[in-house]
Amino acid sequence: MEFTAAQIANLLGGEVSGNPDASVSSLSKIEEGKVGSLSFLSNPAYTQYIYTTEASIVIVDKNFVAESEVKSTLVKVEDARMAFAKLLEMYNQIRLAKTGIEQPSFISASAKVGNDCYVGAFTYIGENVRIGNNVKLYPNAYVGDNTSIADNTIVYAGVKIYHDCVIGSNCTIHSGVIIGGDGFGFAPSSSENGYAKVTHIGNVILEDHVEVGSNTTIDRATLGSTIVRKGAKLDNLIQIAHNVEIGENTVIAAQTGVAGSTKIGANCMIGGQVGIVGHITIANGVKIAAQSGIGQSITKENEILQGSPAFGIGEYKRSYVMFKKLPELNNKISELEKQFK
Amino acid sequence: MEFTAAQIANLLGGEVSGNPDASVSSLSKIEEGKVGSLSFLSNPAYTQYIYTTEASIVIVDKNFVAESEVKSTLVKVEDARMAFAKLLEMYNQIRLAKTGIEQPSFISASAKVGNDCYVGAFTYIGENVRIGNNVKLYPNAYVGDNTSIADNTIVYAGVKIYHDCVIGSNCTIHSGVIIGGDGFGFAPSSSENGYAKVTHIGNVILEDHVEVGSNTTIDRATLGSTIVRKGAKLDNLIQIAHNVEIGENTVIAAQTGVAGSTKIGANCMIGGQVGIVGHITIANGVKIAAQSGIGQSITKENEILQGSPAFGIGEYKRSYVMFKKLPELNNKISELEKQFK
Amino acid sequence: MEFTAAQIANLLGGEVSGNPDASVSSLSKIEEGKVGSLSFLSNPAYTQYIYTTEASIVIVDKNFVAESEVKSTLVKVEDARMAFAKLLEMYNQIRLAKTGIEQPSFISASAKVGNDCYVGAFTYIGENVRIGNNVKLYPNAYVGDNTSIADNTIVYAGVKIYHDCVIGSNCTIHSGVIIGGDGFGFAPSSSENGYAKVTHIGNVILEDHVEVGSNTTIDRATLGSTIVRKGAKLDNLIQIAHNVEIGENTVIAAQTGVAGSTKIGANCMIGGQVGIVGHITIANGVKIAAQSGIGQSITKENEILQGSPAFGIGEYKRSYVMFKKLPELNNKISELEKQFK
Repeated sequence: MEFTAAQIANLLGGEVSGNPDASVSSLSKIEEGKVGSLSFLSNPAYTQYIYTTEASIVIVDKNFVAESEVKSTLVKVEDARMAFAKLLEMYNQIRLAKTGIEQPSFISASAKVGNDCYVGAFTYIGENVRIGNNVKLYPNAYVGDNTSIADNTIVYAGVKIYHDCVIGSNCTIHSGVIIGGDGFGFAPSSSENGYAKVTHIGNVILEDHVEVGSNTTIDRATLGSTIVRKGAKLDNLIQIAHNVEIGENTVIAAQTGVAGSTKIGANCMIGGQVGIVGHITIANGVKIAAQSGIGQSITKENEILQGSPAFGIGEYKRSYVMFKKLPELNNKISELEKQFK
Repeated sequence: MEFTAAQIANLLGGEVSGNPDASVSSLSKIEEGKVGSLSFLSNPAYTQYIYTTEASIVIVDKNFVAESEVKSTLVKVEDARMAFAKLLEMYNQIRLAKTGIEQPSFISASAKVGNDCYVGAFTYIGENVRIGNNVKLYPNAYVGDNTSIADNTIVYAGVKIYHDCVIGSNCTIHSGVIIGGDGFGFAPSSSENGYAKVTHIGNVILEDHVEVGSNTTIDRATLGSTIVRKGAKLDNLIQIAHNVEIGENTVIAAQTGVAGSTKIGANCMIGGQVGIVGHITIANGVKIAAQSGIGQSITKENEILQGSPAFGIGEYKRSYVMFKKLPELNNKISELEKQFK
Repeated sequence: MEFTAAQIANLLGGEVSGNPDASVSSLSKIEEGKVGSLSFLSNPAYTQYIYTTEASIVIVDKNFVAESEVKSTLVKVEDARMAFAKLLEMYNQIRLAKTGIEQPSFISASAKVGNDCYVGAFTYIGENVRIGNNVKLYPNAYVGDNTSIADNTIVYAGVKIYHDCVIGSNCTIHSGVIIGGDGFGFAPSSSENGYAKVTHIGNVILEDHVEVGSNTTIDRATLGSTIVRKGAKLDNLIQIAHNVEIGENTVIAAQTGVAGSTKIGANCMIGGQVGIVGHITIANGVKIAAQSGIGQSITKENEILQGSPAFGIGEYKRSYVMFKKLPELNNKISELEKQFK
């Protein structure tokens, strides 16, 4: 696709400085700009490149004033970074705007699929499933019986959603995500088979505007629901166990695990590879450093924690400095003991 | 589905106290009971709710005696918790009892599929595969050439089992599980390509009554077999490397990794995010705390370990208490040094 | 398949000592050899078994001289271990050499598929995809629009590769791998939805001879490319974030995570469950112990690190020895304080 400076200015509500017919068909960083590419300037540290870039069009802040000659056509907007991001998103949406039902796919007679949806080949839609409008189900996806998916949600290739789950609107679910597998519950049993399986009769609820990264797993509740609240963002390869609740707008980085029945508050930021035990509560706004282990409830809002088990991040860092010096401390103690004798 | 108190009592071998025609079509916790829902009372801490719950039917222990009026119809049984669990399981089995072969699916001419099986759409069954009776293969599953799956095993949507593997009876394999990928073996090589791949000619064996959680990976052996023994339970996102053995009824929590050729004994309990190096042996009944790292064999049965590298959990906790106090200890040493001078 | 000693000697450029018509149809370790099986002897510690093994054929080093009677037919070669490995690989390649296009599969009209390829049933090939010669795409794989896959690459069942990615030649990609999902990027936003998604318009490039283990995830770049360079090997369940670069012949063990925009050098060896923060650089040849956390750039080549945050492995081990003795150190300090008073 090719766009002119005039079209871009029009889309962004900006103003052209230079040739309004200059056209672009690719994107580049300003320092790597080529003829036919579109770039943007926002960070002052990169201002120098505007005088050398080959990019045909550069989006700049409204108040940008060139101090020497600029070859590129400029599009001046309120906030260049935001405008560029908006443009990328519009571009991506056009590019990925698949619709229609590819064959072969499997849609149960009792399922309902809304308007303007995409159902990729080899995608399976079970009985009584409800799919809203403008939902994209890429190839090889699976939606179990009685599950519903609300408007504008994107389900990428190979996602598996078990029966009875509820997926909100405007969610993005990446490939390989598994929603609704049984929780890990086994009761010791006198039978020869070691353990009796705890039946999981609950479900998973994803509220609106949730994003879930590739190969993350979210288990169904024993009874009731495992819930990921509105606006929460989960990275790749995360484990969310049965009956967990993730609060609104909480963000969790890759490979973190949350054990059963734990409730995490709103607006938390949790690093990668963190482990959180089951049956605890974490207050709103808590931040947890990568690789930490959380073994008990955190009741104070906005606390920042590190370590396994975790405590205050400042204290952890001070202790860790001394951990590195332990052989030295040990020598000092031995020296003191010797001198004392 | 709707059930009456009389039907439930009959199923559970219990006794009705109240209206035998009271009927339920959903499940609830006793404190959240609604008209038309079934609940149970087992934990004495919840006894108060039996006098206020709206649940139409409540399963209680045989020896329960109401101290004031109860609106719900009661079904009295030997053990209310167990009876409720049994009921859930029966209900779930009825609900999920799919059979038949959906189209399009791919079943090789040389494969054999037993009686009462379910083969979902887009499921692939390779050459010489043997599928027992009452096996459920949900949509988008893949079973490679020469692999066998014994009776009553459930393989959920999107599971991939490579060639030559052996899956026991009564196993549950959740979505996204990968069984039989090549082990991670590369020999340094003088070729320009850096490493020569070690060919993996072995397989994976899952014995009976094994459960494997979503997106867990179990690699095939170099030669011989990677084995998960009878009754072992693996949670989600676990890595089991080539030639590993997991003992009978051992339970492993999410995101743990076991490196190549390690043998884990029976009845072990291993926490989440644990790492276990290759080529070691772990005795029966060992317990390992979450996020621990195991760097050498554990020969003593029933030991409980923590840390990375792990040692006795009591010692670890005592050391960790002092770790938190390290800056304070350091001050004490400095003070002593100063005073001594 | 059955092979004679003469055929094997011919394949390996070796020499038969014993019955050239001795034949084998299975493989075994020398200590577990059975009639009809092929084994090899390389490690001198196993020499004793050559006099007792039942293996019909044993591959040995050219300079091996029997000190008493050997029942097996020997095939003498330059390097018995290498020869056996080569034989396994040839055997495996014959066994797995599927070709042809199974039905139903989905190949877009605008896609091009080379010669001698295998396209399994339920595999999806998007628009403008370019598939080279001798590529194997197992069942239920997905290749998004505009992606290319070069010659001799194997893509196992259920791999999902998003649009616009570039996969090199001679790569092996195991089941459940997700390539090209959006990076985890969200900008705080004043909207009611908490975060604005950062559009990911870049791609993923895998160079030649790369191997990727089961269920590993590699996110696409924001702009530009996430790159895994020639000969790199990734184990299972690894997370590679947006805009990361993994250097040539670098090897990474299972469940490790690399955060956004980090560049890892060539010939590094990274243990399992390691976490590496974003926006740093790691020099060539660096080795990182399992479960370590890397919080800043490592500029010195060939360094060996441990800990979270990591420092020199020797120092770490010395500090950890003292960590175990912390309660004892604490007692010594208390004793000194008491005595001093």
